Amino acid sequence: MTLPAALAAEAPRAAAMLDRLGAIGADPPGITRHAFDERENAAHTLAVERAQHLGLEIARDAACNLYLTWPGTDRAAPRVLLGSHFDSVRHGGNYDGAAGVVAALAAVSALRATGFRPRADITIAAFRCEEAVWFGLGLVGSRAALGILPPDALDRRRADTGLTLADHIARCGGDPAAIAPGRRLLPNGPIRCFLEAHIEQAPSLIEAGLPLAVATGIPGNIRHAAIRITGEDAHVGLPRRFRRDAALAGAEIFAALDALWAEEEAAGRAMAFTIGRFHTDVTRHEITVVAGEFTFSIDLRAYDAAHLAALDRRFRDILDATAARRGVTIDPGPRSAAPVGPCDPALQASLAAAAARMGIATMPLGSPASHDAANFAAAGIPTGLLLIRNAHGSHNPREAMDAADMMAAAATFAEWLRAEAAA
Amino acid sequence: MTLPAALAAEAPRAAAMLDRLGAIGADPPGITRHAFDERENAAHTLAVERAQHLGLEIARDAACNLYLTWPGTDRAAPRVLLGSHFDSVRHGGNYDGAAGVVAALAAVSALRATGFRPRADITIAAFRCEEAVWFGLGLVGSRAALGILPPDALDRRRADTGLTLADHIARCGGDPAAIAPGRRLLPNGPIRCFLEAHIEQAPSLIEAGLPLAVATGIPGNIRHAAIRITGEDAHVGLPRRFRRDAALAGAEIFAALDALWAEEEAAGRAMAFTIGRFHTDVTRHEITVVAGEFTFSIDLRAYDAAHLAALDRRFRDILDATAARRGVTIDPGPRSAAPVGPCDPALQASLAAAAARMGIATMPLGSPASHDAANFAAAGIPTGLLLIRNAHGSHNPREAMDAADMMAAAATFAEWLRAEAAA
Repeated sequence: MTLPAALAAEAPRAAAMLDRLGAIGADPPGITRHAFDERENAAHTLAVERAQHLGLEIARDAACNLYLTWPGTDRAAPRVLLGSHFDSVRHGGNYDGAAGVVAALAAVSALRATGFRPRADITIAAFRCEEAVWFGLGLVGSRAALGILPPDALDRRRADTGLTLADHIARCGGDPAAIAPGRRLLPNGPIRCFLEAHIEQAPSLIEAGLPLAVATGIPGNIRHAAIRITGEDAHVGLPRRFRRDAALAGAEIFAALDALWAEEEAAGRAMAFTIGRFHTDVTRHEITVVAGEFTFSIDLRAYDAAHLAALDRRFRDILDATAARRGVTIDPGPRSAAPVGPCDPALQASLAAAAARMGIATMPLGSPASHDAANFAAAGIPTGLLLIRNAHGSHNPREAMDAADMMAAAATFAEWLRAEAAA
Repeated sequence: MTLPAALAAEAPRAAAMLDRLGAIGADPPGITRHAFDERENAAHTLAVERAQHLGLEIARDAACNLYLTWPGTDRAAPRVLLGSHFDSVRHGGNYDGAAGVVAALAAVSALRATGFRPRADITIAAFRCEEAVWFGLGLVGSRAALGILPPDALDRRRADTGLTLADHIARCGGDPAAIAPGRRLLPNGPIRCFLEAHIEQAPSLIEAGLPLAVATGIPGNIRHAAIRITGEDAHVGLPRRFRRDAALAGAEIFAALDALWAEEEAAGRAMAFTIGRFHTDVTRHEITVVAGEFTFSIDLRAYDAAHLAALDRRFRDILDATAARRGVTIDPGPRSAAPVGPCDPALQASLAAAAARMGIATMPLGSPASHDAANFAAAGIPTGLLLIRNAHGSHNPREAMDAADMMAAAATFAEWLRAEAAA
């Protein structure tokens, strides 16, 4: 069977798997597949069933990440690793993460139907808990797999269950005691490269009218979950010169960061920042009281480590200047960071060429978001990332990917493996 | 007994009454005297006991406002009304409102000890529910007394008890059915003037080193308790040009209003605005999601009706411009308003003169806040307002008035009555 014919036969199976994942996550008005919990487990079970059908080797690591391996003719050769994640945010969409695992399975299934034999092992990974909302830290499974999970991460609690990450891992059959800095949990042996497909979280591909992009890089980020501004509660009648308004200080910081972004954008330096939480205390603050306390989160991201560090300095300068001007103190609280993930130039070229051979037009694009792939890139493993066209962004119920665009990613992976990984 | 001697004898009793009011309201970390509830009732009972001791006539109206009357020799002559309120905000201070009633009682008590006989009735009023936090509407008791309570006010619910204003009035022994637009509940007969003493909610008197100010006017206000901005929830990776960030729109509105205030201040036009509630939804918004919804309150105030209307138009222009620029919709929600309260020029002069005769230095000052007095001024009743020096503002536990400064207000009232209201 030709590869195009095998991919055409694979398409309905891949679409059906997406539907079954949607049913597992159904949580109106959207999809919730809680990390390290029953619904993520059910998604893993679905992938295992598919792997059993394909005759793949099935393994799990101590962090409950799943590895589905098509054995190569030379089992000592550096393996090709592909994958993504199944967990979602609360009331998110069906495709963020899941589409990448389904596309990898579809690529392997189609390639297998053509009679292809790989030289090295090809392993599809489903990493746990990629979303930061569950434990206040993203990319948990792939960090654990690479031995770079922060030491305190296992003690973090999921706000809704009150259980620690270690508790959740143990409940899913993992072994939190075996997770430690510097200890890799990945399948044994060298890794040639890591490839991931993921829906685009922005509408750049919609705008461009293309199904796929080859990522040029993955942004690193710096995050503060709760920056606390303290001024002084005061009466509504207090003249302007006496006020130490914490909420106004917050507003000025937000506006200053937006101005900084506009400036960077005009200079062609890609970055983003998001203040997703931005609030007075609804149980305490009143219409007639100047707010003496204000809290906000920040996610600051860029594609180059030096640029990200420079933006972080600018952010801190904005905090300092605002604190001085408004007579408030600002406690940035705990900070977390994810490294920038440069995409391998040779992989960018070979993925774009494979797509072109399948008649799929692509464009280069900086990844809007971080992904498990970022950890592999930061670990020095050559990394490639395909972004799949997707409407309405991600992390919301209106996420909308056409399954045909996911199959374009599967076709690109299959053709890349055919050309690059044959026995 | 001379008036200064009588006032000196009165001072410890007035201080003791403040202490008893503080004990009634004790609610660490501050004072709470809930409107139309047990603690406000207890404060009224304390005033009634004091009035009984002084031989005053005691009356209540259908809205549970309290009137303590020193009968004059000519009971048909236009009465002098003095007063303020006993309710506080939650975890506020002991003096906002209460000091005004205590000062009026001290003035009458001292004057009575000198053998003074008034020509017209002198009535001390304690109005209910001056604070807007209880039912989302301020000056409730004095509005009801003047027949200007908005028709829907009786159906408003107190968030903490879930009961309506009508329920609360009935539980305090009032008659909500007798409260209607245009129906005055005040004691019968013409009113010569209304005089109020109230702590200053700003530190202007602290700054000036003076115990008292004679207010030149009381600001009217326009309030929205919950203005809702709707944009679109989006992924943290969404490029700037695609975002419809509701929280950023809120930040820009806040910053624009502050710039407007700075401009007005530089032009010498007194105003204030406060955004006390300013928040994303802490149960929904996440560090990695652009906030598609944002809520804020506003209190906008000025001393002249035309100026306030002009500021309201500027505010609406800012909302419209921000909505257009940020691709969000803005629903201003319910609106309430309090009229501006010009202080009577002749009363300003006679109060300042009375203070000077008692050796008390005063300054003219725009009232930072609205007060029950504003309703009387708006109703065309000549109104005078004394502001008492107070540290740390109001509506917070750190409110700090020296009882001696309150006695300066009592002395001013007593001397004014001696000179202006003798039989």
